[in-house]
Amino acid sequence: MGMVGGGTDAFIGAIHRLAAFMDGQIELVCGCFSVNPEVSISSGKSYYLPENRVYKTYQEMFENEARLPEGERMDFVTIVTPNFAHFDPAMMALENGFHVVIDKPITFTLDEALKLKAKIQQTGLLLALTHTYSGYPAVKEARERVRRGDLGKIRKIFVEYPQGWLSSKLEDAGNAQASWRTDPKRSGKAGCMGDIGTHAHHLAEYITGLKTKEVCAELNVFVPGRLLDDDGAVLLRFDNGARGVLMATQIAAGEENAIRIRVYGDKGGIDWFQHEPNTLYVKWSDKPTEIVRTGQGYMSDIAKHNTRTPGGHPEGYLEAFANIYRNFSLTLRAKMNNTQPKPEWLDFPTVEDGIRGMQFIDVVVESGYNNDKKWYKWPE
Amino acid sequence: MGMVGGGTDAFIGAIHRLAAFMDGQIELVCGCFSVNPEVSISSGKSYYLPENRVYKTYQEMFENEARLPEGERMDFVTIVTPNFAHFDPAMMALENGFHVVIDKPITFTLDEALKLKAKIQQTGLLLALTHTYSGYPAVKEARERVRRGDLGKIRKIFVEYPQGWLSSKLEDAGNAQASWRTDPKRSGKAGCMGDIGTHAHHLAEYITGLKTKEVCAELNVFVPGRLLDDDGAVLLRFDNGARGVLMATQIAAGEENAIRIRVYGDKGGIDWFQHEPNTLYVKWSDKPTEIVRTGQGYMSDIAKHNTRTPGGHPEGYLEAFANIYRNFSLTLRAKMNNTQPKPEWLDFPTVEDGIRGMQFIDVVVESGYNNDKKWYKWPE
Amino acid sequence: MGMVGGGTDAFIGAIHRLAAFMDGQIELVCGCFSVNPEVSISSGKSYYLPENRVYKTYQEMFENEARLPEGERMDFVTIVTPNFAHFDPAMMALENGFHVVIDKPITFTLDEALKLKAKIQQTGLLLALTHTYSGYPAVKEARERVRRGDLGKIRKIFVEYPQGWLSSKLEDAGNAQASWRTDPKRSGKAGCMGDIGTHAHHLAEYITGLKTKEVCAELNVFVPGRLLDDDGAVLLRFDNGARGVLMATQIAAGEENAIRIRVYGDKGGIDWFQHEPNTLYVKWSDKPTEIVRTGQGYMSDIAKHNTRTPGGHPEGYLEAFANIYRNFSLTLRAKMNNTQPKPEWLDFPTVEDGIRGMQFIDVVVESGYNNDKKWYKWPE
Amino acid sequence: MGMVGGGTDAFIGAIHRLAAFMDGQIELVCGCFSVNPEVSISSGKSYYLPENRVYKTYQEMFENEARLPEGERMDFVTIVTPNFAHFDPAMMALENGFHVVIDKPITFTLDEALKLKAKIQQTGLLLALTHTYSGYPAVKEARERVRRGDLGKIRKIFVEYPQGWLSSKLEDAGNAQASWRTDPKRSGKAGCMGDIGTHAHHLAEYITGLKTKEVCAELNVFVPGRLLDDDGAVLLRFDNGARGVLMATQIAAGEENAIRIRVYGDKGGIDWFQHEPNTLYVKWSDKPTEIVRTGQGYMSDIAKHNTRTPGGHPEGYLEAFANIYRNFSLTLRAKMNNTQPKPEWLDFPTVEDGIRGMQFIDVVVESGYNNDKKWYKWPE
Repeated sequence: MGMVGGGTDAFIGAIHRLAAFMDGQIELVCGCFSVNPEVSISSGKSYYLPENRVYKTYQEMFENEARLPEGERMDFVTIVTPNFAHFDPAMMALENGFHVVIDKPITFTLDEALKLKAKIQQTGLLLALTHTYSGYPAVKEARERVRRGDLGKIRKIFVEYPQGWLSSKLEDAGNAQASWRTDPKRSGKAGCMGDIGTHAHHLAEYITGLKTKEVCAELNVFVPGRLLDDDGAVLLRFDNGARGVLMATQIAAGEENAIRIRVYGDKGGIDWFQHEPNTLYVKWSDKPTEIVRTGQGYMSDIAKHNTRTPGGHPEGYLEAFANIYRNFSLTLRAKMNNTQPKPEWLDFPTVEDGIRGMQFIDVVVESGYNNDKKWYKWPE
Repeated sequence: MGMVGGGTDAFIGAIHRLAAFMDGQIELVCGCFSVNPEVSISSGKSYYLPENRVYKTYQEMFENEARLPEGERMDFVTIVTPNFAHFDPAMMALENGFHVVIDKPITFTLDEALKLKAKIQQTGLLLALTHTYSGYPAVKEARERVRRGDLGKIRKIFVEYPQGWLSSKLEDAGNAQASWRTDPKRSGKAGCMGDIGTHAHHLAEYITGLKTKEVCAELNVFVPGRLLDDDGAVLLRFDNGARGVLMATQIAAGEENAIRIRVYGDKGGIDWFQHEPNTLYVKWSDKPTEIVRTGQGYMSDIAKHNTRTPGGHPEGYLEAFANIYRNFSLTLRAKMNNTQPKPEWLDFPTVEDGIRGMQFIDVVVESGYNNDKKWYKWPE
Repeated sequence: MGMVGGGTDAFIGAIHRLAAFMDGQIELVCGCFSVNPEVSISSGKSYYLPENRVYKTYQEMFENEARLPEGERMDFVTIVTPNFAHFDPAMMALENGFHVVIDKPITFTLDEALKLKAKIQQTGLLLALTHTYSGYPAVKEARERVRRGDLGKIRKIFVEYPQGWLSSKLEDAGNAQASWRTDPKRSGKAGCMGDIGTHAHHLAEYITGLKTKEVCAELNVFVPGRLLDDDGAVLLRFDNGARGVLMATQIAAGEENAIRIRVYGDKGGIDWFQHEPNTLYVKWSDKPTEIVRTGQGYMSDIAKHNTRTPGGHPEGYLEAFANIYRNFSLTLRAKMNNTQPKPEWLDFPTVEDGIRGMQFIDVVVESGYNNDKKWYKWPE
Repeated sequence: MGMVGGGTDAFIGAIHRLAAFMDGQIELVCGCFSVNPEVSISSGKSYYLPENRVYKTYQEMFENEARLPEGERMDFVTIVTPNFAHFDPAMMALENGFHVVIDKPITFTLDEALKLKAKIQQTGLLLALTHTYSGYPAVKEARERVRRGDLGKIRKIFVEYPQGWLSSKLEDAGNAQASWRTDPKRSGKAGCMGDIGTHAHHLAEYITGLKTKEVCAELNVFVPGRLLDDDGAVLLRFDNGARGVLMATQIAAGEENAIRIRVYGDKGGIDWFQHEPNTLYVKWSDKPTEIVRTGQGYMSDIAKHNTRTPGGHPEGYLEAFANIYRNFSLTLRAKMNNTQPKPEWLDFPTVEDGIRGMQFIDVVVESGYNNDKKWYKWPE
């Protein structure tokens, strides 16, 4: 694995490394960890990399690595830069024959995402998108239970992602995370909705297998002077007739990363909440709610495949993240060995999820600031 | 206390009696418990009433009772019939000089509610509306904390009331509750939104003291053949600029009466959930969430006034209900004694709350089925 | 209903009245509310009693009431005085032909309890003991599930009752509750174990139907200068070979009335906690834990009989208390009507439970301060 | 890192590798993964080790590795065999100059543990013992809060570790974990108490800094034919006068790994539960309970040092485990670099904790089956 971004001063890069390393299947072999060459070099050193594999630009990295013999050069690159700097390194990686892992949202614009898709179709390379919450085993159990019809026909989806960290104007207080995430030039046209709304929306479609057809959104900017939305709500209409409500906010003072989803069918419902991620509540009209727990023998195969510890030894965010890396690397290894990946290995978000995320941003921003037109069709 | 409706075969009437009796301040002295005279008589008997105080029609009741000497005749009447049968007995009670307790929604139409208000203004009689959830001490604590500014300026309100009991077509299965509540002739123009959406909306305005200015709603009918909405969501805009999301549904399979409200200001937030009603979570940006509990010495005076048991001995729905009756009866007693009621006694829902509930139904139904116009102004 | 104790300055008397009145079946007709005649008189007035039914001594009350005609005189008396003042009025009530409700522990000494039992056997009168926690419908559901064998053979019981209110020396700070409860002359030989340990022990035997055979206890006095135990733990051996651990403490700073019980058999377990009293967790070795909820159609008949509200409208401590009064009054009414009470009406604690409570106090106090002998046999 | 035990068919070895790899600081370089050489070789292959670093016996491993040049040879060995096979490889590792990580209980007998201690004192090598639960950041926060006096003088400790997996005789059903853990020849003189009771006891002493002085235990064997205790309870007396209750059981049907600890001082209490390990409840006599959460700015430095993710992105068992490895490796690196380790790096369990664990087993087994003598002094 090579890395673009993720210097010692960065946040999400460290998470990616923890997740990638955990299973002992992935090694960091090179990187360009910062636009600041000194930071890149010192970061590489602290990651125990040899000097000649720490690069000053990602262009240099892709060119040099491409020249190294197979087995020595990196197999894939992980891109953990702010949104505006996703597309160029991703495209260049693909052009140089490297598989890609990329943080969400996949690109700065929908158009860029479509270009990546075309390049992937052309090259046959893999791309994994780190929609982390879909990596939790209890989320996969939820999806499996919807898929096999336990809940009946899906009618209603409530998905919410309240955070409170942007309740005040942190971007003026020297907070680097706040700074780029609220800056349209680095984050894109959406703030809260791009940063966490996309996660909520992905989770809803991932679990139910439904596709959004229409949205009615309201976006708000609560903190004076902020340049992007820090709050919003979206009414959703799905292709099977189900209805949804999506809430995402970064000004819910006191909330952490409280993503939660509830799905109801005509027979029952499920309820999953990140703060206790190993539990899935399964509800029924006529019998007691069940507390379904990861690590238990009654879980589905797909949940078990994504579980590392026995019941009651909690797994968390890093393990969910690691599941994306593990499934990606298992698929990649199969591909490199010219063998058939198992179906459960293919269960990681791809460029298609990235495109839906960009479409979500587009349509929600368009709807969210319009006070007249009620329903917007999903972009085709 | 006299009663209209509430025979031994009814649901909410029994709740009203439990709530009214609990504090030893209110006695049932007469009633017309059913449109079926036999049911009324047998009900009255089982409530230990003398035969001459059990009436076959409410008209008869008001006339007879009005002729009895003060001290012997009932002081007020409780009306616990289905919605369509609220207005007539309420108006007649007022015309005969009786104070009124009435279940929500206050009337069948907004126009009727306005007429009751006019009559109340003319007569000076009291009317209490049983928006039960505002009777919980932890809800009153929430309101007090908003009022005194603990949370800062209110920005966001999430209020939800998911039920699951109407997931299938119970109204065709002989369920009396389902039958009238889904029947436009008895329930009114709204189903779910009238039955429980009004509760959620009242709770939001009660706690925050804000008034809704605009709504954007979607109403749904999920169960085929049902005549009224069984699900809906409403985006709310409040008079101070705050935004809200209201969800109410009766097809969330497996849910009971899971009303919950979260309110966030620029300093902190509160979270209250009926399933553990004695707890109020108070959240802060920079310090730990607090578990605020009824019965504790640190609670506000208004919460203490509405609490009967020490901390950890849970109070519930009946005590919340009883708080409305107790405050109403304390106010009524003061009025009858020509003394000044204490401010905390006046804390029960009145005709004004009833009118806002009817306005909510009107505007939500209008918005909820319109696919074009996004925002509707609150009816003036 | 008449009352001994329970003036307007008392705590538990108010709870008894709330619980007794709730169902509209019991009326307060007379009382001697305090050893202070003035307090008794003013209390009686505030309870709307006629002057001639408010007595200065309980002796006077029993004598006068006994002379009144049936139908007018009280049917039973509730005794809500401190422990040392239970026996005399209870015995006098029985001697005058009145049924009795009494707070726990039943008497000051085991010997007194045995005398009450003899008198009850002789007179055929009823006595109900308010071990409130056994009144919760979810507790009754737990008992039913054990009884019908769902959990298999019972192996292990954990029961705990942590409180924190006596963490400091409140008895020196003018707290009336603390004052008598920590005073051996008014409370008896046990403090914490008599006050709340007996509740925990009763709950364990009530739910499982097992009888304690041996105990190994340690009692502690943590607050310097306190005269009775404020903390303790008891290892329990039951008659079927099951083992138990009972913890009761009043110095667990920050705890309210956190009584909880867990029972495990060879097939499954149950977990009940007063802070969310409408929920019973039912656990299984090989399938998900179930969240069993009062008010649901799947509950047992005995739980339903003791439930007043639909699922999700929480009931609490007062309703549990009221269940004891209701079952007692239903049984009493049947007895007065010479009809057969239904089996579920007989489900209230009696003098037998009172005797076991006194035996518990005796054996736990004996064991709890002995550092040598490990196991004590249950007193026969 | 080298490894003894932990073949692909083993449980805890996989956990150790996940925990060791996560932070990118530790690499597996060699191992003897099984007493079965074929399993060892195939395991080594699947861990991507070169053939010449996969050994058939641990003796061979220590000898070969010791001959390799520094920088190439392993720095430390992790021993993840069943209890009976801890001492020999650990002693041989120390004799060959290798640092050691070892699973608990440290050895088969107390005597062995004392010998390891002597060898460590002689060699100056490091030994880390994986009492995982002490690795959780919220547990470290609890310890810090006790240490700095927030709770006042500690009075009461409740620690419990209920499991249900041994409710039936799994050891006869081909379950390898059950087989060795219930076998006195491989597990030692204690079953449940050695396996999980030691964890509970360690947690109590770790958080409070107190030392147990006396115990009164009861051990039980509930499953017929089982050779070791599968359940037990221990009353504890600590050196400052505090009292404790420890419960550990493996026959609590339906429980997972529900280790929980509550500690009360004269000012407040703490409550931590593995099932939601990122939360620490801090309780107070006179103000609301606080929900203290890992990843928050208000946490202590020691908690922050042991936290990898922001608040609300849950960490779990593997991260707690990894904290032991990380602190051990940071200390080891400092030692190898002849620099001073930071105080927070030294926060991992050592041979001293191992000795106390063996003493706990000794005294609890002696007390647990004795029906006469109540209190046993802690072994000196």
